Amino acid sequence: MAGKAILIICDGLGDRQIKGKTPLQMARRPNMNALASKGITGIMHTIAPGVIPGSDTAHLALLSYDPHTYYQGRGVYEALGAGLELEDGDIAFRCNFATVNDRMVVTDRRAGRISGVGAELAKGLNGQKVDSTEIVFKATTEHRGVLVLRGEGLSRNVSDVDPHEANMSVMKSKPLDGTMEAKRTAFVLNRFTELSHEVLKDNPINIEREKKGKPPADIVLARGSGAYSRLDSLQEKYGVRSACVAGGALYKGVAKAVGMDIIDVEGATGTADTNLAAKVAIVKSALSEYDIIFLHIKATDNFSHDGDVKGKVKMIEKIDKAIGPLLKTEAYIILSGDHSTPCALKNHSADPLPIAVYGEGVRVDDVRRFDEISCMKGGLGHIGGLDVMPLMLSFIGKTKIFGS
Amino acid sequence: MAGKAILIICDGLGDRQIKGKTPLQMARRPNMNALASKGITGIMHTIAPGVIPGSDTAHLALLSYDPHTYYQGRGVYEALGAGLELEDGDIAFRCNFATVNDRMVVTDRRAGRISGVGAELAKGLNGQKVDSTEIVFKATTEHRGVLVLRGEGLSRNVSDVDPHEANMSVMKSKPLDGTMEAKRTAFVLNRFTELSHEVLKDNPINIEREKKGKPPADIVLARGSGAYSRLDSLQEKYGVRSACVAGGALYKGVAKAVGMDIIDVEGATGTADTNLAAKVAIVKSALSEYDIIFLHIKATDNFSHDGDVKGKVKMIEKIDKAIGPLLKTEAYIILSGDHSTPCALKNHSADPLPIAVYGEGVRVDDVRRFDEISCMKGGLGHIGGLDVMPLMLSFIGKTKIFGS
Repeated sequence: MAGKAILIICDGLGDRQIKGKTPLQMARRPNMNALASKGITGIMHTIAPGVIPGSDTAHLALLSYDPHTYYQGRGVYEALGAGLELEDGDIAFRCNFATVNDRMVVTDRRAGRISGVGAELAKGLNGQKVDSTEIVFKATTEHRGVLVLRGEGLSRNVSDVDPHEANMSVMKSKPLDGTMEAKRTAFVLNRFTELSHEVLKDNPINIEREKKGKPPADIVLARGSGAYSRLDSLQEKYGVRSACVAGGALYKGVAKAVGMDIIDVEGATGTADTNLAAKVAIVKSALSEYDIIFLHIKATDNFSHDGDVKGKVKMIEKIDKAIGPLLKTEAYIILSGDHSTPCALKNHSADPLPIAVYGEGVRVDDVRRFDEISCMKGGLGHIGGLDVMPLMLSFIGKTKIFGS
Repeated sequence: MAGKAILIICDGLGDRQIKGKTPLQMARRPNMNALASKGITGIMHTIAPGVIPGSDTAHLALLSYDPHTYYQGRGVYEALGAGLELEDGDIAFRCNFATVNDRMVVTDRRAGRISGVGAELAKGLNGQKVDSTEIVFKATTEHRGVLVLRGEGLSRNVSDVDPHEANMSVMKSKPLDGTMEAKRTAFVLNRFTELSHEVLKDNPINIEREKKGKPPADIVLARGSGAYSRLDSLQEKYGVRSACVAGGALYKGVAKAVGMDIIDVEGATGTADTNLAAKVAIVKSALSEYDIIFLHIKATDNFSHDGDVKGKVKMIEKIDKAIGPLLKTEAYIILSGDHSTPCALKNHSADPLPIAVYGEGVRVDDVRRFDEISCMKGGLGHIGGLDVMPLMLSFIGKTKIFGS
């Protein structure tokens, strides 16, 4: 199956040395080491040295879309990842169902992590109008949802309604520039926020919850505005058929933004209990249909944000085991992460990532281990995230010669 | 003779491992290894990681002209390399004398590889006019030639007349954009093509060939349009006197486009039987007159395109022997290739190239061998083709300080 490539991205994979070893170095990782031994390795700065990548900007770069030009704001990818079809000019937000008191102070940013009732609560919100602006609202997992404002003359340059902390008042969205569009969007968003409270506070689900002493989901708090416009797809840019296998909505959303097909996998959760075997099996079987498959595994990042070194090491070992079957295909395999999330920081950092490229004809260097330190000496040298797609395309024979 | 530099470019030099070794690694190459041992080495991406360079774009980059900005199309370099003087706005093409049947189907794209008659055949074509457009036509080697359309309002955005395969009809050139200039150029090119058939079919040479059962050279098929405009020369950009020693017309053409002097060498053929010793002797003697000499050796690429590993290894050994005398000069020597042409692919690839820089004061790294794998660990790290000229200039003292 030469001419195919699998891009495996372990979220937040990169780390720093803890008593001399990074979590990757601590993990038993025979398959990752096999990729390093039989392939070429290097170090990747997803965006640039010293730049801390967000998950959204990092993935745009990895998929060949320079985030300095093409980043549209988090809300766009969340909305696409939630399965909404967006139109040029749509303004999209991530949202939480939350609980407020009668002075509009947020008492619970996640409404007691409600579960299973989002879709019912959303019914009263989706399809509303504020002036001529159409409201599209979709509940996603637990307390989460996405909001899209659709209509003429809107802007993404507005501040969040979500105060990002409990015991703070709901914020008024403000225009972040002097345009009419930003003023109008802030007005619509504030009106939607009030509306959500008016509609939700009397919803029977919430009345029931209050009776049981649970925090009602009585407001929707939006954040992370984005403005959608259609990008040239990977198919249009490079003539490749590509697909994404991921649990998290954000990653599916970025993949959808660049025109990848999204293959939903039962049990792909974006957490440590994700069904990795099922994801890998789907990747294998999809190789017949696609040139490039992007496999995203989220949980390494979750452990990093919790500062859980042991958890991260175990997750790496789990991934190592799971990807074994992919090494037996004839596809090129590119293994890396989207950004480092050092456990010591519990947050993204600008530290670059190890990367390994394995497959027919790849020049084999003498690096034998896949980790942040060993790959410093790899034959790929230091590359950028934007180099990853051109490299993959050239190996699978999808690159046209420049000149003659 | 400090302050001089020789840039040795072996065409298509880079390769991939074949049973663990690249052709460079297989070759006995004491001189190349001496350059690596006593110099500094690295890996060069002629254009960028994942980008497959053409021969023309690669050489533009190596000579410090970013091909994204300065690439003018293959025809320009072929015409310059054939010795034509071009004027701003000239549209140039590579051409073949070919054979067509009476339904204008190409029966032989090279007219039986005619030899020694091109100049005579060209007489009836050169100097013609189509409307106000002047036709400049020059026969070069064997069945090859170059065509220049000269006049107001022309464009390079036209498709080829050459169908690139035998048993296909002669193509009608089409405008590739909506401009009047492209329409006009396609019209002129089509008219020239017809004219070439009208003029050539009754040429006594062809009547004679047909009598002998040989395919007549009864049409000229153009391809690879380019639009000439004068570039600032290396002399103007950097104040250096530079010269090119090459066999192939394309390389002479690129060199001429950037203002290098072309030193013709008897027996420099661009093939394996080229007179390497003569080329090297000319380079040595030209060092007194020039700051930078670009020595191009083509045949490594020819063997690669044929998939002939043994031939490539032998050619590398031949080059290694031939360049020996240059190591005894006091000039800086920069050794690399223009692009990789892996024998397994028989085509250009995006794989980068080893590079070695040798001369007084160059920091010596610990790489002892000149090849794609050893140079991965070289002290130059990974550089781009556009870095080569600035590096050379700085070593020969032709670089001005930036700031103070």
